[in-house]
Amino acid sequence: MRNSKLVTLEEAIKRSGLQNGMTISFHHHFRGGDKVVNMVVDKLAEMGFKDLKLAASSLSDVHAPLIDHIKNGVITGISTSGLRGALADAISHGLLKEPVVFRSHGGRGSAIANGELKIDVAFLGASSADELGNACGYSRSENAKSICGSLGYALPDARYAKHVVVITDDLVEYPNMPMSISAADVESVVVVDSVGDSSKIAAGAIRDSKNPRDILLAKQAAKVIINSGLFVDGFSIQTGTGGASLAAVKYIREEMINRGIKASFALGGITAHMVKLHEEGLIGKLIDVQSFDKVAAESIKNDPTHQEVSAVEYASGQHLGSATHALDIVILSALEVDTDFNVNVLVGSDGIIRGAIGGHQDTAADSALSIIVCPLLRGRIPCVVPHVTTLITPGKSVDVVVTEYGIAVNPGRPEIAEKLKAAGLNIVDIKDLAAKASSIIGKPDALPFGDKVVGIVMNRDGSVLDKIYNIVE
Amino acid sequence: MRNSKLVTLEEAIKRSGLQNGMTISFHHHFRGGDKVVNMVVDKLAEMGFKDLKLAASSLSDVHAPLIDHIKNGVITGISTSGLRGALADAISHGLLKEPVVFRSHGGRGSAIANGELKIDVAFLGASSADELGNACGYSRSENAKSICGSLGYALPDARYAKHVVVITDDLVEYPNMPMSISAADVESVVVVDSVGDSSKIAAGAIRDSKNPRDILLAKQAAKVIINSGLFVDGFSIQTGTGGASLAAVKYIREEMINRGIKASFALGGITAHMVKLHEEGLIGKLIDVQSFDKVAAESIKNDPTHQEVSAVEYASGQHLGSATHALDIVILSALEVDTDFNVNVLVGSDGIIRGAIGGHQDTAADSALSIIVCPLLRGRIPCVVPHVTTLITPGKSVDVVVTEYGIAVNPGRPEIAEKLKAAGLNIVDIKDLAAKASSIIGKPDALPFGDKVVGIVMNRDGSVLDKIYNIVE
Repeated sequence: MRNSKLVTLEEAIKRSGLQNGMTISFHHHFRGGDKVVNMVVDKLAEMGFKDLKLAASSLSDVHAPLIDHIKNGVITGISTSGLRGALADAISHGLLKEPVVFRSHGGRGSAIANGELKIDVAFLGASSADELGNACGYSRSENAKSICGSLGYALPDARYAKHVVVITDDLVEYPNMPMSISAADVESVVVVDSVGDSSKIAAGAIRDSKNPRDILLAKQAAKVIINSGLFVDGFSIQTGTGGASLAAVKYIREEMINRGIKASFALGGITAHMVKLHEEGLIGKLIDVQSFDKVAAESIKNDPTHQEVSAVEYASGQHLGSATHALDIVILSALEVDTDFNVNVLVGSDGIIRGAIGGHQDTAADSALSIIVCPLLRGRIPCVVPHVTTLITPGKSVDVVVTEYGIAVNPGRPEIAEKLKAAGLNIVDIKDLAAKASSIIGKPDALPFGDKVVGIVMNRDGSVLDKIYNIVE
Repeated sequence: MRNSKLVTLEEAIKRSGLQNGMTISFHHHFRGGDKVVNMVVDKLAEMGFKDLKLAASSLSDVHAPLIDHIKNGVITGISTSGLRGALADAISHGLLKEPVVFRSHGGRGSAIANGELKIDVAFLGASSADELGNACGYSRSENAKSICGSLGYALPDARYAKHVVVITDDLVEYPNMPMSISAADVESVVVVDSVGDSSKIAAGAIRDSKNPRDILLAKQAAKVIINSGLFVDGFSIQTGTGGASLAAVKYIREEMINRGIKASFALGGITAHMVKLHEEGLIGKLIDVQSFDKVAAESIKNDPTHQEVSAVEYASGQHLGSATHALDIVILSALEVDTDFNVNVLVGSDGIIRGAIGGHQDTAADSALSIIVCPLLRGRIPCVVPHVTTLITPGKSVDVVVTEYGIAVNPGRPEIAEKLKAAGLNIVDIKDLAAKASSIIGKPDALPFGDKVVGIVMNRDGSVLDKIYNIVE
């Protein structure tokens, strides 16, 4: 067609004006199935680029090939929500000279919008695009190869990056509308064999749990919600991706039906569980920054009341209209919670990075009720501790901690403690939970941290919350 | 709700930080039924503001009260796509000290996006909004009072203005999704009795014609399209709002059915005519920057393949992804065409401003085939002239001029002239058309222009095309 933006990846890179030292960005909507980051960075390495800063919405196991690109000096800086797998391990041991900058999803959105995180060239994978660049995370064509649903984390990049390259595995007829990324924001369109393996968008953190302890935790979390005073017609909810968090939805659903109440919206990473409640009429709208499985991805494609939102619209602390500001209840998971209700979801008890901030900071801060669901122990690892290894979500944002040994309520929320006690729930002091864990496991040895800062944890307001040091073995 | 942005208009203005000398903006989706401009400027006058610059997407008869606000010094500058009625008349006679800056719809979008037109506070009327500011040009609630459909001309303001106030006559439950204006871009929400009279969105330029000359012109325009070589399966089209332009759709439809071809999309101001073809399956998608009647407004509310686009996405010359860049055929009207194919749609033959640039410049420049439909004479007024009174769309963008005395083809497009001649159409030299008009009417007297510049006509690329001088009577 006239004015086609179709070029090869190499041409798109040349056309972008990318230079050494600049910042490139990516989204992680294909999660463990992502093929775009490795493909683009391989090409950049082949073209001789050095000293690039990689600003991803998140990174996972599949991005282990970045290790070589860091060793070769192609990538010298990373900002992301999380790190997992071999890349996380290598970075935890000091692979990268500059510390990785960790931001929440809302924090990344804010930083892009306010110019703190400047993106020179965004490389945005899409499941369909037309030759002018209208793109989305699904395709309506017969040649559809991939689907990831919402492109919410890519939308700030599309809006604010100086140059935007859309990479797709299904080039469709113009106009590819409705679109997520608008052609007006796009400079080049590149067609490749595959942008991602959709079977893996539900991999990693997300799975249905049959673990009896998860079921127990889920029931307790559901009771907290039901008795919180917020469980009234028109309430709103977000659930994380932990097994217990997902299982809790089942119990909440039953009680919604029993009481005849409906939710106005469910927010966040949307799962098949939420789509089911929505389709049953129990949830009015779905507000989706990331589709956590294929059912959710298909739903956002076909249902106008299942709304895609950008990371800014989802959870920016600097935009009062972001959806978290209207959120009543959030269920979140944790690697560690400490006796000040501080939460760590990023660094393992061995000091190795193995998680992601995600929307944890954002939803905990803005919601009316934030509930952390975590076991007291995971094997020999205590999850309620005197001090978190790394501070991700400040305790002042955390209202309730649900464990299999009882429910702790933040002393700053006495009205919630009263309600839960009145409902007969087992309310305990969080210090007693930490003591219990310690009595079972004993006091763990201090972690062998070195003196090199390998990660900086940003708060969603742009301030520094904590530093992560290298692990020495 | 928590974090509500609901305030009175006066509070919203105070909160906006508006100061004398700043720029305020408005959209014109309610056309002759708009109530927001007058309401807000009345309030600003009452609050003592002076020297404000008014950046509207367009202004019409209903905005005559601005005359007093100009006299009082509340408004000292205007930029707009068009002016009509008493306000246009007064400005043509020199009411405003600074010249009005006229931009095309795409040119305004570009100017806002590239920072040439900086908006301090946007006051955006919406037919529904929630308390966080998610807003659109229709409402799904039982209390819906107004509907205007697409908010396309308001979207650049929402995205780029420093401060955004949404004004609505139907406050609905959060989340008002799908939304046109995102809450993340909104600072305040104001509820008023009425933002506009929806019965007037089809008023003014848009009407079905029963005029026999319009029918003749429409048939000729349809023949030009059908024989242009572009009338193939997957073509795209935009029609203006003139009677002949709308009537042409009827003949094109018949021939589409005869030949078994379908259009990929229709663009622009969308009318009931286009909605009908879309619903019949003859047009794949509707790309709608402005809904020109209630049928179109209801369609954009209910049909996901009827896509709202911003003025930038519609017609920016500085964004290669704007839809005009994919447009095959556009039918446009004219007040005057001259022998160099230059077109005037803004200033009457009496020198009085009485029109709007609209998307004229944009679609003529970007489309593969631009067709101007205009009678040789309107009463005693010649429409094909040696020189246009005011240059709005340069002749190099204009391909074909259809009159009741024959069809003129731009000498720069000989391949089109060949095709139309081969189809037996009456192809004439545009100089002969001008001579014919002159032979009937005689040579008109020179217009009594003064030496004060009352308007500056911008080209869509930000350069100055022409100046409009005051009329002395």
